[in-house]
Amino acid sequence: MAAPRISKADFERSLPALRDELLDLQLKLHTSKACAVAVIIAGTPAAGRSETVNELISWLDPKHIGVHALGDPTKEDRRFPALWRYWQKLPARGRITFFFAGWYGEYVGGEIKDKSSKRHDKRSVERILQLEQMLVRDRVRVVKIYLHTDHETQQRRLKELRANKLTSWRVTKEDRWQAKHFDQVNRVVRACLKATDHEIAPWHRVDGTDEEYRLLTVGKILRDEIRAGLQPRQPRRLSWPREKPTKAAALSVVQPARLVDDDEYDQQLETLQGRLARLVRKSRFRKQGLVLAFEGMDAAGKGGAIRRITHALDARQYQVVPVSAPTPEELLYPYLWRFWRHVPPLGSIAIFDRSWYGRVLVERVRDLTPEADWRRAYAEIVEFERQLTEHGLFVAKFWLSVSKGEQLRRFKARDEDPLKRFKVDREDWANRRYYDAYQAAAAEMVRRTDTESARWTIVPADDKKHARLAVLRAVCDTLER
Amino acid sequence: MAAPRISKADFERSLPALRDELLDLQLKLHTSKACAVAVIIAGTPAAGRSETVNELISWLDPKHIGVHALGDPTKEDRRFPALWRYWQKLPARGRITFFFAGWYGEYVGGEIKDKSSKRHDKRSVERILQLEQMLVRDRVRVVKIYLHTDHETQQRRLKELRANKLTSWRVTKEDRWQAKHFDQVNRVVRACLKATDHEIAPWHRVDGTDEEYRLLTVGKILRDEIRAGLQPRQPRRLSWPREKPTKAAALSVVQPARLVDDDEYDQQLETLQGRLARLVRKSRFRKQGLVLAFEGMDAAGKGGAIRRITHALDARQYQVVPVSAPTPEELLYPYLWRFWRHVPPLGSIAIFDRSWYGRVLVERVRDLTPEADWRRAYAEIVEFERQLTEHGLFVAKFWLSVSKGEQLRRFKARDEDPLKRFKVDREDWANRRYYDAYQAAAAEMVRRTDTESARWTIVPADDKKHARLAVLRAVCDTLER
Repeated sequence: MAAPRISKADFERSLPALRDELLDLQLKLHTSKACAVAVIIAGTPAAGRSETVNELISWLDPKHIGVHALGDPTKEDRRFPALWRYWQKLPARGRITFFFAGWYGEYVGGEIKDKSSKRHDKRSVERILQLEQMLVRDRVRVVKIYLHTDHETQQRRLKELRANKLTSWRVTKEDRWQAKHFDQVNRVVRACLKATDHEIAPWHRVDGTDEEYRLLTVGKILRDEIRAGLQPRQPRRLSWPREKPTKAAALSVVQPARLVDDDEYDQQLETLQGRLARLVRKSRFRKQGLVLAFEGMDAAGKGGAIRRITHALDARQYQVVPVSAPTPEELLYPYLWRFWRHVPPLGSIAIFDRSWYGRVLVERVRDLTPEADWRRAYAEIVEFERQLTEHGLFVAKFWLSVSKGEQLRRFKARDEDPLKRFKVDREDWANRRYYDAYQAAAAEMVRRTDTESARWTIVPADDKKHARLAVLRAVCDTLER
Repeated sequence: MAAPRISKADFERSLPALRDELLDLQLKLHTSKACAVAVIIAGTPAAGRSETVNELISWLDPKHIGVHALGDPTKEDRRFPALWRYWQKLPARGRITFFFAGWYGEYVGGEIKDKSSKRHDKRSVERILQLEQMLVRDRVRVVKIYLHTDHETQQRRLKELRANKLTSWRVTKEDRWQAKHFDQVNRVVRACLKATDHEIAPWHRVDGTDEEYRLLTVGKILRDEIRAGLQPRQPRRLSWPREKPTKAAALSVVQPARLVDDDEYDQQLETLQGRLARLVRKSRFRKQGLVLAFEGMDAAGKGGAIRRITHALDARQYQVVPVSAPTPEELLYPYLWRFWRHVPPLGSIAIFDRSWYGRVLVERVRDLTPEADWRRAYAEIVEFERQLTEHGLFVAKFWLSVSKGEQLRRFKARDEDPLKRFKVDREDWANRRYYDAYQAAAAEMVRRTDTESARWTIVPADDKKHARLAVLRAVCDTLER
């Protein structure tokens, strides 16, 4: 079958209109912030990947464009979960980013080179599909383009590139290997594309033999995708079966009958902090890491519990990440973006004072996010935490449960203490009115996101000392698993 | 002389009050955002650096604390100017960050190991002093603490640390070398501290022999520094000698008499873009890099000139950075922070569509920044660009000069073009009323910041084609220097 062609004359005729359309759409995208556009350009060597991106970009306003050719992960990259480096580079809404190979680099590359680890591959596909689904729902348009040529064209182009002093560096060893194993590579790639071709982010295969055909085709794909992204979103008023809060649904938390006394507390605290200190100083820990998430009503004692943990740690080893309402900048990215930014590298500890669970707690209870969005967050969060644990990080999550009466007592005590008055604001009193709704949301959250490798610990927190010891104990237990 | 000591009992007596004070001050700092605090902890091996930081942090709220032990620069770090990695980690106002060794690591380490490169050292000191001056003026409190012990104490502690399985990893090869050459190291360090001891950011030498003394002393230093940082700033109404705009002060720009015709333009454009493409594809360029800054009145044609450059480049090689008013987050950092974030690594190109010169243009003309602050920006900018060029980056700056009449014509034409209408807003019309003030500010800017290694090119821009060719030519000339 002959490669599709477009004559120079036809090209020249169609180009100006297409360029105007693209520039106009980019402008609308930038001003409306309707969505972000992530373009993945993959393809066989010498099928014109760079040429295509360079040309497309020359039609657009480069101010709102990003281009990333991430290549193989560096030593530093490898300290983070595989998808971390892509999260760092995601475009904000209003922007277009081109990724050479994108998150397919390692998966397809791995498939080509090594067919042994089938189980790993299955997870690669799962991760990619889940990522793209989430991106699309969080208003990132994912455009996937695969450029290909026949073997002869490839050979000829590689030869031309290598003959020219200014382009010979572009032909890598990997390109030459792939050219040599053309059919084999093609088979594997075909399977990869098929496995990751889904309706919300389909692959566009484009024949790259004829330059004019290639450019116009890719340009039109981009145009159609941006246009689609500018459409107002369907209001998603799916009606989910409302769960009635039943006894079973609510978290049953029994506050301990007896207060922990001071001596007992001091002694146990020291023992547990010593145990934790030893665990994170073991050489083994350098290939692990720890992610702790703290949730609970205002005044439940999250800060105090966190400080009892950090006292056992070396300051160079951990980071406490306070989470509050997203900033305007953060709102331009997919929901999990601001948490991915703080995922710790191996050997380190990140402690989140409030976390990604805000989606299904405050955002749900105070009606800040449509139901369809917080509903899907359960699965997204489970997958997010799974990627962390697969990478070797331990994940432990704490719900500090303070009773309504004790919360009131603490609010009042704070109001009387000039040093702590700042801690209770209007918003806290307002939240208190939603106490029961929070309890129900917490119960569902725990039920839906308590997984084998990322456990919830429900901590009765009316007695602060009891709570702090319970948290420390759970952290140590997690690390000893 | 005996090392200063504090008895356990005195320590226990003084501690609670100090901790309360520190926590209270930290809170005030966080809520008022009065300043940021950067604490540099340096010292001889085993003088208690980590122990001190760990203990101090345990007295504070870890949510608003950062800790960085940056160590030797990685391969990736080396692609950026030396101070780049510290800029990435600077605390925002309201936060406290501890830096182990901080920006002294390479300087002092270099001095200890190698006394040959005197000239380099002089620049290291200059860079540090200038950095700290700028930070302090931009509301970062710089607290520098040097912990030391006598040789015997050091030997004993290192032995203890090495004997314990959980701490032996903390004694590095470097520590052992320094312990062995105690006197020599001490002499060099003394000279380094002296060279970098200045009134606005003095060194605090603290004897680390007695743990209680060390902790209380460092705690009190931190307390006093935060307290000083919370003081309302002296309004700096220095009266600078106002320069009267004279003929000599204004930029004399002669618009070309003859328009460039289409054929000539197309031909020259192609030649120049080819020349640029070759220059940045040379293997030599991988150890260089390019920073371009574009300034000019609204509608002067900055975007068009930039696009003519990017057309010659590979998309993976450059980034266009649009600069507009700082975001609320950016305002919490020193002025140059948001530009340091976009400094390109070696082998890359960053093109700034507006730049750090906003300080002495729009911020001066529209009275957004006190005179004392934009006045000192001239020297700060010269130093900033010097650090770029010392690292191997070429820096070229363009003032696109459009006449008042031509600007009006362009505004009107844009208003009539639905695709471009967005480009002219109220703000632009308002700015136009300040046309003459901008010209005077531009003239002073060029006079004060045109340096041998970072040249200004004044581009008559009434004829867009002429301007684009002139810019391209200057970029090529810069790279060929």
